Amino acid sequence: MGGDHAPDAVVKGVALARIRYPHVHFLLHGDEARIQPLLASDPATAKVCTIAHTADVVSPEAKAGQALRSGKQTSMWKAIEAVKLGHARGVVSAGNTGALMAMAKLILRPLPGIDRPAICTMLPTRTGETVMLDLGANVQCDARNLVEFAIMGECFARAMLGLERPTVGLLNIGSEDLKGTDTLREAAEQLRSAHLDLEFHGFIEGDDITKGTVDVVVTDGFTGNVALKTAEGTAKLYTEFLRNAVKSSWLAMFGMLFAKPVIMQVMARTDPRRYNGALFVGLNGVAVKSHGGTDPVGFANAIGVAVDMVARDLNSRIAHELARLQLTPTPAATVEGPRAPVVASE
Amino acid sequence: MGGDHAPDAVVKGVALARIRYPHVHFLLHGDEARIQPLLASDPATAKVCTIAHTADVVSPEAKAGQALRSGKQTSMWKAIEAVKLGHARGVVSAGNTGALMAMAKLILRPLPGIDRPAICTMLPTRTGETVMLDLGANVQCDARNLVEFAIMGECFARAMLGLERPTVGLLNIGSEDLKGTDTLREAAEQLRSAHLDLEFHGFIEGDDITKGTVDVVVTDGFTGNVALKTAEGTAKLYTEFLRNAVKSSWLAMFGMLFAKPVIMQVMARTDPRRYNGALFVGLNGVAVKSHGGTDPVGFANAIGVAVDMVARDLNSRIAHELARLQLTPTPAATVEGPRAPVVASE
Repeated sequence: MGGDHAPDAVVKGVALARIRYPHVHFLLHGDEARIQPLLASDPATAKVCTIAHTADVVSPEAKAGQALRSGKQTSMWKAIEAVKLGHARGVVSAGNTGALMAMAKLILRPLPGIDRPAICTMLPTRTGETVMLDLGANVQCDARNLVEFAIMGECFARAMLGLERPTVGLLNIGSEDLKGTDTLREAAEQLRSAHLDLEFHGFIEGDDITKGTVDVVVTDGFTGNVALKTAEGTAKLYTEFLRNAVKSSWLAMFGMLFAKPVIMQVMARTDPRRYNGALFVGLNGVAVKSHGGTDPVGFANAIGVAVDMVARDLNSRIAHELARLQLTPTPAATVEGPRAPVVASE
Repeated sequence: MGGDHAPDAVVKGVALARIRYPHVHFLLHGDEARIQPLLASDPATAKVCTIAHTADVVSPEAKAGQALRSGKQTSMWKAIEAVKLGHARGVVSAGNTGALMAMAKLILRPLPGIDRPAICTMLPTRTGETVMLDLGANVQCDARNLVEFAIMGECFARAMLGLERPTVGLLNIGSEDLKGTDTLREAAEQLRSAHLDLEFHGFIEGDDITKGTVDVVVTDGFTGNVALKTAEGTAKLYTEFLRNAVKSSWLAMFGMLFAKPVIMQVMARTDPRRYNGALFVGLNGVAVKSHGGTDPVGFANAIGVAVDMVARDLNSRIAHELARLQLTPTPAATVEGPRAPVVASE
């Protein structure tokens, strides 16, 4: 099992998730000797889990290529393979991101018509939530890649946010049509074309992400990764400034006793654990990356993303949308494996 | 004069700045009929100002090319020209950013050895302040451009933050040497080379900006612009969430009375007006862009950036550093105009 607090955080996350999703069965890939005692103390969770013993793990420092070459006996490989083989409908891992992306892409393969799978997540905004992709899978992207991201992100927003017609924006450094790179202008032109039938808003800027200007923010993996981490860093900066300021004054600490319930509400709304679980979208199968340092609550939320994606059949929706682009000859071929609601964790 | 609240915010900003910088004289380029009454009510400020009447202005919507072609009689053009002609040592404008960049580049010309001037500003971090560039002047950059930004940013940090050896980081999506694009890896290699004698930290990630991991964050104008605006948007999101939460509860509002002094300290520390004034660095002359919507306090801070840059002779420092790169034959030639501490505002 991967992640900073494995296997404890993973097993405890499963314990939380099984209450929320009582119909789901879990395949736990990892060291049986360490997982078994944790399950022994929680019989209700043990009942919905099957341990698939693997002694080998992908190290957090391993390069993706190295993990691909020598990682075929690791818990990560085996968990992804369980999806490929139809033993599970989705995989959730808090392990090495690069290795997970590389293995998932190799084992599950991209959906027909998808050139580049992407990393996708939800973020809090002033008006609700927004979907953003790519967050780091593809450093450089052409217009076609961005159009694929837009289609996948729109399907994700329909499934996760329950929107009929999610609006899609292309992240740029100005909202005027002439701004940005040739790639962005070309992608915008394709997204405006009628046969895509997408609610394309046009270009948006960095501050539009949290304004909630659009439901889906599309960008290349480099910009998306930098923007996401910058937002996380800024949120931490504000939280720390406020905490230190309040701690510096007895009067302020007294006052904060009264404000605490509403401050806690804000913290809950922007809790990174709430947004834990980035989907690796565009694959034949559901693969979700959890933050490595998350706790059981965060891991349970990552499991939630996987369960939702399976339940709402995201990949069929994507295949259907891609068909409009006339990119894929047989969209029905993209629906993966059998229907048992099983999630593999590692 | 440009900006959303011109000429009021500009003249009142000058009124604040002249107290902080009593040795500075101001050339105000704009509509005399509107500026004169404002100065008439403030004789002390009027004493340090000369009005240079121009009836024409650059519209906020004007494209840069259009402004260049037909804007030679505008207050913006005339204010920049005042620097070129040696009537002023620096120019500050709250007007159209694209037009200001294009005009400043055309009129003042890049420093010898500088291929691409960049937009540079300071940002609050957990440990103090950091310098970041480029923030939008150059959408696409090669390795050489990034190296130039690093040199200019380092000089800016020495001048503004008073650091002996500012550390420089290249913004990337991982800290490992293999991460990112070929351009970034090539720039990193050049920055590591001994003859540059720069404190190069290596690659940093988005959350390192606010952590204060380095004193100078170097990136291309696209990524920098998106990161800066994302940070601004996130800061606004948190402020709004907190404000709304407190307003929703009488108890919290009561409690906040006690916490208010320390909350105000945090607000002051992260006040966007405090960081108003982005330097267009790498030109023969000092050109500072103020936020269009800023108030007198913000505009006075933008003037402060221009005054500091003139006083600390940033361009001579840059020329000296470039000489190490053996890019420029006669570094002394880059010191601009006469020495009278005059700032042109428009």
